[in-house]
Amino acid sequence: MKDLRESVRQGKFSIREISDKARRIEDVVRLDIGQPDYPTPESVKKAAEEALRSKKIKYTSLWGMKELRKEISRYEGHKLDEVTKENVLVTTGGTGALFSVFSTLCEPGENILFNDPCWTVYSLQSKVSSVEINQTEFFKDGELDKENIKESIGEDTKAIVVNNPENPSGRVYSKKELEEIAEVAKEEGLWIIADEVYDRMLYNAKHVSMGEIAPERSIIINSMSKNFAMTGWRIGWVIAGDEEIIHELGKVNRATTACPNTLAQYAALEALKEEDDYIEEMLEEYKGRRDLMQDYIDELGWSYVEPRGAFYLFPEVNQDSWKFSKKLLEEEKVAVVPGEPSGENSSEKIRLCFGSADKEDIKKGMERIQRFL
Amino acid sequence: MKDLRESVRQGKFSIREISDKARRIEDVVRLDIGQPDYPTPESVKKAAEEALRSKKIKYTSLWGMKELRKEISRYEGHKLDEVTKENVLVTTGGTGALFSVFSTLCEPGENILFNDPCWTVYSLQSKVSSVEINQTEFFKDGELDKENIKESIGEDTKAIVVNNPENPSGRVYSKKELEEIAEVAKEEGLWIIADEVYDRMLYNAKHVSMGEIAPERSIIINSMSKNFAMTGWRIGWVIAGDEEIIHELGKVNRATTACPNTLAQYAALEALKEEDDYIEEMLEEYKGRRDLMQDYIDELGWSYVEPRGAFYLFPEVNQDSWKFSKKLLEEEKVAVVPGEPSGENSSEKIRLCFGSADKEDIKKGMERIQRFL
Repeated sequence: MKDLRESVRQGKFSIREISDKARRIEDVVRLDIGQPDYPTPESVKKAAEEALRSKKIKYTSLWGMKELRKEISRYEGHKLDEVTKENVLVTTGGTGALFSVFSTLCEPGENILFNDPCWTVYSLQSKVSSVEINQTEFFKDGELDKENIKESIGEDTKAIVVNNPENPSGRVYSKKELEEIAEVAKEEGLWIIADEVYDRMLYNAKHVSMGEIAPERSIIINSMSKNFAMTGWRIGWVIAGDEEIIHELGKVNRATTACPNTLAQYAALEALKEEDDYIEEMLEEYKGRRDLMQDYIDELGWSYVEPRGAFYLFPEVNQDSWKFSKKLLEEEKVAVVPGEPSGENSSEKIRLCFGSADKEDIKKGMERIQRFL
Repeated sequence: MKDLRESVRQGKFSIREISDKARRIEDVVRLDIGQPDYPTPESVKKAAEEALRSKKIKYTSLWGMKELRKEISRYEGHKLDEVTKENVLVTTGGTGALFSVFSTLCEPGENILFNDPCWTVYSLQSKVSSVEINQTEFFKDGELDKENIKESIGEDTKAIVVNNPENPSGRVYSKKELEEIAEVAKEEGLWIIADEVYDRMLYNAKHVSMGEIAPERSIIINSMSKNFAMTGWRIGWVIAGDEEIIHELGKVNRATTACPNTLAQYAALEALKEEDDYIEEMLEEYKGRRDLMQDYIDELGWSYVEPRGAFYLFPEVNQDSWKFSKKLLEEEKVAVVPGEPSGENSSEKIRLCFGSADKEDIKKGMERIQRFL
């Protein structure tokens, strides 16, 4: 038979090597899993049950249910000058949102600029949508390196991704940093893909949306997965000021999924309406975990960006991240994510996640790491 | 800002023009909607409720839950020489399955061969995955036209789609027809994409899977949407003899959706286990509708392929299908789907669907069509 698509062949499940091994080890401490263990809001389950009994779970509009698009436009209303349901596309998770955007903005072979470090799945998504990955360090010695970003932009660069709060670093971008990136994007005529799926997971930090800075060129991604601990429900969305973009992105939605899961759309609608105390309580739990993990890392003397958002720490371990991670798993049964797939300049860092590890796990895991060193 | 991807721009929501209008017309008869109105099995709802209460709705493996892959391998076991869970990829509906396959088999610019007529969404999926559409009439005067199929295959043709039962025609392919297509595919080194999402919706017909004929080159698509009236749940799958293909297709799954909705995976698992009487009862209802619609069409004297599967009739109306459909909607408030988007040689046909129209609707709609003519 003839060959498969080369770019798909090249795509990597970069971090499964660790998780596959970890799953088989007894008494392992998992600091690699990038999903929240916090329970989904009770209101979500109730809404799903009610929809199961009272609604027909049929196809919805390919842009998502009207009521949900409307509710999202209210929820995200502060991010753009004006958000109506026409500015909203509901997708199969933030992943579906990102894939739609990548596939719509670039011709095959054109590129998108990412920070080093960045979320490892961007790379696979780029491959599958025939987009080239262009990666550089947005920051140098803790400061935004505007010149470096500018130099990395070529004729074939269509967009820049700003993941804020950032996976794997936990970085929360300041208003000034966002403004500087927006300036470059404006000068170069780029779209800004603002991946804001952790925008409620903040520790003593304020989130500024890229939409508030550059509404005319921001395509904003968000999701229920992290903020509402609804990973398995697969509901995310795109908002953009330009309704035409939303129309075009809908084609990718239609082509890849028909529409997002209908039951999950009903559940998301309820979650967005009744979110008040839920997030606050969740953050209190995560902040405790973060502080604990950070104390251990400070003791180890590793350098890192203080995570003011998301649920990751991304310290420098000063040795090859793959060797470190594999050896740590073998010798001390602690699973962490090697930094190398996040970028060339991240190959001596590791990602530690406190999303699925409670304080007991963190204590155990970090003490093993101390011993390992 | 720089331009959007041209192939996405070119993608069309071909039949929304009719449905958008129809939705706003009072007392309209909808013979255009391509989804079942039959209720989802009660066991599915119960399984979903139970999962809501007892399971965490988290990410599953990107290939789908082990238990579900295993159950699908049992359910589809007759279609290939051997089916284990390693031969199964669970996807976000049949749509997700098809998109994964299109994106994995072809380099951008290469083509897939489709019958004329074919399902209109194939065209959009091709555009979004940068695949060219190659279309020809597989049948001439009711006979499979092997020579014509062969002549339509070029160097850049990677695969041939066999949609059996077929949307929009309702055609069920005979074993001999499948064998002839398989022969051509073998001679030309093509994959066969066997879209079998209506494989249980049969009227006095037997379904032969392409996998039984050409197991080495068949990539089989199926879904819960039609056979189990679970459209809004978005669960489908791919099975293929070659585990390597399943591995590669998983990358597209990961890139487009992360994984299928977890709650829906639990529900599908139950549906596949407890399906016995459900499908039989459903088919009895649909068969009644089909017979009724067919009687009316015979009276009109329109020619068509007898639908022995799915829930469509695709008669020749001997005039431009768009003009016919628009005028019929305006004058007699009956919504049907114009044939033109299904293929160049289908531009004087229309698709009538009895999936969402009960006997009362069919009677009303067909009498209006009689009057219209």
